[in-house]
Amino acid sequence: DLPLTLIAGPCQLESLDHALMIAEAMAKACADAGAGYVFKASYDKANRTSLSGMRGLGIDEGLRVMDEVRAEIGCPTLTDVHSPEHCAAVAQAVDVMQIPAFLCRQTDLLVAAGETGAVVNIKKGQFLAPWDMPNVISKVESTGNENILLTERGASFGYNALVADFRSLPTMAKTGYPVIMDATHSVQQPGGQGGSTGGQREFAPVMARAAVSLGVAGVFIETHEDPDRAPSDGPNMIPLDQMPALIKSLMQFDALAKADPCRI
Amino acid sequence: DLPLTLIAGPCQLESLDHALMIAEAMAKACADAGAGYVFKASYDKANRTSLSGMRGLGIDEGLRVMDEVRAEIGCPTLTDVHSPEHCAAVAQAVDVMQIPAFLCRQTDLLVAAGETGAVVNIKKGQFLAPWDMPNVISKVESTGNENILLTERGASFGYNALVADFRSLPTMAKTGYPVIMDATHSVQQPGGQGGSTGGQREFAPVMARAAVSLGVAGVFIETHEDPDRAPSDGPNMIPLDQMPALIKSLMQFDALAKADPCRI
Amino acid sequence: DLPLTLIAGPCQLESLDHALMIAEAMAKACADAGAGYVFKASYDKANRTSLSGMRGLGIDEGLRVMDEVRAEIGCPTLTDVHSPEHCAAVAQAVDVMQIPAFLCRQTDLLVAAGETGAVVNIKKGQFLAPWDMPNVISKVESTGNENILLTERGASFGYNALVADFRSLPTMAKTGYPVIMDATHSVQQPGGQGGSTGGQREFAPVMARAAVSLGVAGVFIETHEDPDRAPSDGPNMIPLDQMPALIKSLMQFDALAKADPCRI
Amino acid sequence: DLPLTLIAGPCQLESLDHALMIAEAMAKACADAGAGYVFKASYDKANRTSLSGMRGLGIDEGLRVMDEVRAEIGCPTLTDVHSPEHCAAVAQAVDVMQIPAFLCRQTDLLVAAGETGAVVNIKKGQFLAPWDMPNVISKVESTGNENILLTERGASFGYNALVADFRSLPTMAKTGYPVIMDATHSVQQPGGQGGSTGGQREFAPVMARAAVSLGVAGVFIETHEDPDRAPSDGPNMIPLDQMPALIKSLMQFDALAKADPCRI
Repeated sequence: DLPLTLIAGPCQLESLDHALMIAEAMAKACADAGAGYVFKASYDKANRTSLSGMRGLGIDEGLRVMDEVRAEIGCPTLTDVHSPEHCAAVAQAVDVMQIPAFLCRQTDLLVAAGETGAVVNIKKGQFLAPWDMPNVISKVESTGNENILLTERGASFGYNALVADFRSLPTMAKTGYPVIMDATHSVQQPGGQGGSTGGQREFAPVMARAAVSLGVAGVFIETHEDPDRAPSDGPNMIPLDQMPALIKSLMQFDALAKADPCRI
Repeated sequence: DLPLTLIAGPCQLESLDHALMIAEAMAKACADAGAGYVFKASYDKANRTSLSGMRGLGIDEGLRVMDEVRAEIGCPTLTDVHSPEHCAAVAQAVDVMQIPAFLCRQTDLLVAAGETGAVVNIKKGQFLAPWDMPNVISKVESTGNENILLTERGASFGYNALVADFRSLPTMAKTGYPVIMDATHSVQQPGGQGGSTGGQREFAPVMARAAVSLGVAGVFIETHEDPDRAPSDGPNMIPLDQMPALIKSLMQFDALAKADPCRI
Repeated sequence: DLPLTLIAGPCQLESLDHALMIAEAMAKACADAGAGYVFKASYDKANRTSLSGMRGLGIDEGLRVMDEVRAEIGCPTLTDVHSPEHCAAVAQAVDVMQIPAFLCRQTDLLVAAGETGAVVNIKKGQFLAPWDMPNVISKVESTGNENILLTERGASFGYNALVADFRSLPTMAKTGYPVIMDATHSVQQPGGQGGSTGGQREFAPVMARAAVSLGVAGVFIETHEDPDRAPSDGPNMIPLDQMPALIKSLMQFDALAKADPCRI
Repeated sequence: DLPLTLIAGPCQLESLDHALMIAEAMAKACADAGAGYVFKASYDKANRTSLSGMRGLGIDEGLRVMDEVRAEIGCPTLTDVHSPEHCAAVAQAVDVMQIPAFLCRQTDLLVAAGETGAVVNIKKGQFLAPWDMPNVISKVESTGNENILLTERGASFGYNALVADFRSLPTMAKTGYPVIMDATHSVQQPGGQGGSTGGQREFAPVMARAAVSLGVAGVFIETHEDPDRAPSDGPNMIPLDQMPALIKSLMQFDALAKADPCRI
């Protein structure tokens, strides 16, 4: 199959300049390593742990920025949608619409996203078994849209903890759709810091490498030039300046995995 | 404190006659036993396991039925809301708006529900620790609305399984808000039947009794005159004709628990 | 059925005087409340979190103390066994031999315990489903011994955490053997304090009451006159002077539950 | 570091001829691929799901076979021990003594194994957090023995299920001891077949590859010429004739991982 694609960016949009800076750095790092690249950022963090968490630029300004990134950097883009009403506008501005994990069973959202014809990346809920994804997929397929990606982002494991079950990757791959490993959110510690969500940044490259060795189509990683000052998900982000080395390393495992597919 | 309240009804609305039949039977059973009663039904099942699952009457017809039940039977009513846009209309037709567990971190929905001034019943997400509920609560409180109920409905426990953690009840009670035990959904087996969700009906009275003995404000139970033919959640519903005996039994434990509160 | 029995004592034996003091206080509290009583203590803590944890009096001195408690106080006694070789000696000194949860699948231990003819209390492993207990039971039954008790003490729930699944109680009761709720160990936080195991003492009465309301045969509670100075399991023990009120409260729920059995 | 070692064999000993056949085939496959090899088999399955499960050759005959395999094939050997009393004899007959996961906190067993001076392979309990292994390790180290291996074999994940948490591998590696991935038992479904334990054989190579890509010292795999007729753990064993290709594939990932270590 195709070489690995990185879906990467700064969790939430901060400004046009910031988005361009990250997209440019990531696009170059991916091109240098022979990887595909999709810029990821959120215009609205609709389910922050607490009300005081920053939510981002909002839909109007946010979609303008996404559109501009695509135009200037020339890379496809991804953002997440939280309501059926937003889907049409979002589909104008980005290439991939992402269904958040908590919302992966909301029928109206899946159908509205599917109807735009855009690529739909469904994050498997923390509460969902991988073998239950076909029920979710068929809600999108019901619109005639088969441009679907499936993402593993960890399963609930007691309170304030997730575990990434790597059986999930080949299980979801049996649907025939490309599978993405979210190396950032699978090492979250939900609510683990009281008013915000903690994380274990050091394990994100571990998750990414293990997934790539199994032959995933893509890896989702959030990155920031200064993660400890990022407005959300900082504790599990990878510093931007470490990304080129990480991507190069992952591409070696990707080449091996794509030449020797792991089948179940 | 006050005697136990039952929140009970047929999962999804089937017709006005059906809703009235159940509400009347339940209101009588509760009155006979000295329990409070709130009629519960959904106008739209927005996150069915699969697309082919029946979704109910829809918002217009559904809210008319809810309004009619309240008028005819004289009991307060509860339904669940799935989008911020629906909150205002729903608040006209029912007394309690319920936030579904999967949506318990969706800030806009919590704020919109709070702004109506109606009572808001928040179901704790299957992925959420009980001590993280204050973050959720504060989203509703931010609107000035402090008419809040908190419901335990089980936590993810591996795949296709939930476990009801009874530490959750006194933990959530420390917020000062009334705590409800959802005896029906905490014995769900999510996705456990392939295209639909299974359940363990026999354990619902077990969950209810254990919770009542700990002094909860209310118990949430779905009931149907013929659970195996109910359009959703049949496998974990209690047959309607068994409810009077169950309520009478629960009221004995309730009297004991309210006289001898269980504090942590 | 019969009124509730308390299985209670100081986790590990400290001295004869200490054991007698606790047994006497507990026997009186149980008699006053109409409850049965079994003195519990360990002569050897064979699986402490760390090597430096105190292990107790050892088998020779320990069994002498157990024998003396039984003679002086006149109550049945329980201790746990860790190797098949110890079973015969232990059976001379106590009435009930307890199989530790970690060891509940060790065939030789179960058979050796069964062969003594003593009552065997099997703690369900943290890793075992309640419906898998019949396989464990049959190992004891193979010796012709059907004096068996089954104890719930929590199931693994992520790392460093347990959850008490109350479906386990009626599920195990279907075997026909008496079921005990271990209110102390089900609120452990295994390894949660680094070199020792933490606990949530405040939840032990919650676990006990919920279980009693479901009609269990007995409750297992560890107690100490000064839990914070107990050599093991202090964080989840109930202070001895709080036991009389707790037992009285539990007996009220027990009377109700035994008059109105909860069946599945 | 050193190239990957395979710890592999037939779960339980069936006969000398059978053991030699497997050891010879595996030793050749490993030598051909440049991998290290340790023959693994059990002389006694002391914790079978049910009493009627076959337990193997027993200690006397079993150790004779292990000794003979070592002499004839010239490879190191591993077996598991279940009681402190067996340790001295076992240490005469094999090179590596394995502590079963259920017994990983049994102090006397760890100390007795350590005192033999043999290599001790500790399987992390299904109920234990990886960061709690130092407490376990120090029990062996207390004997002066620092020939220790640490093995991941899955963590409890609800009932009848395990999940392999790959964060466990680098976490345990921080102790400085070699880490082994048990690709066979981490895909068990404990008790999942009623009277025996099920498994998901198809995922064992997935677990092995992901672990090797993270740079583990070894992989533990059970194999049999006819897994469906093996006396234990058949459902998760790899057929013997598939092992050479699997090992060759793993060695490619091993070379990459050892050249580019994954650190946390």
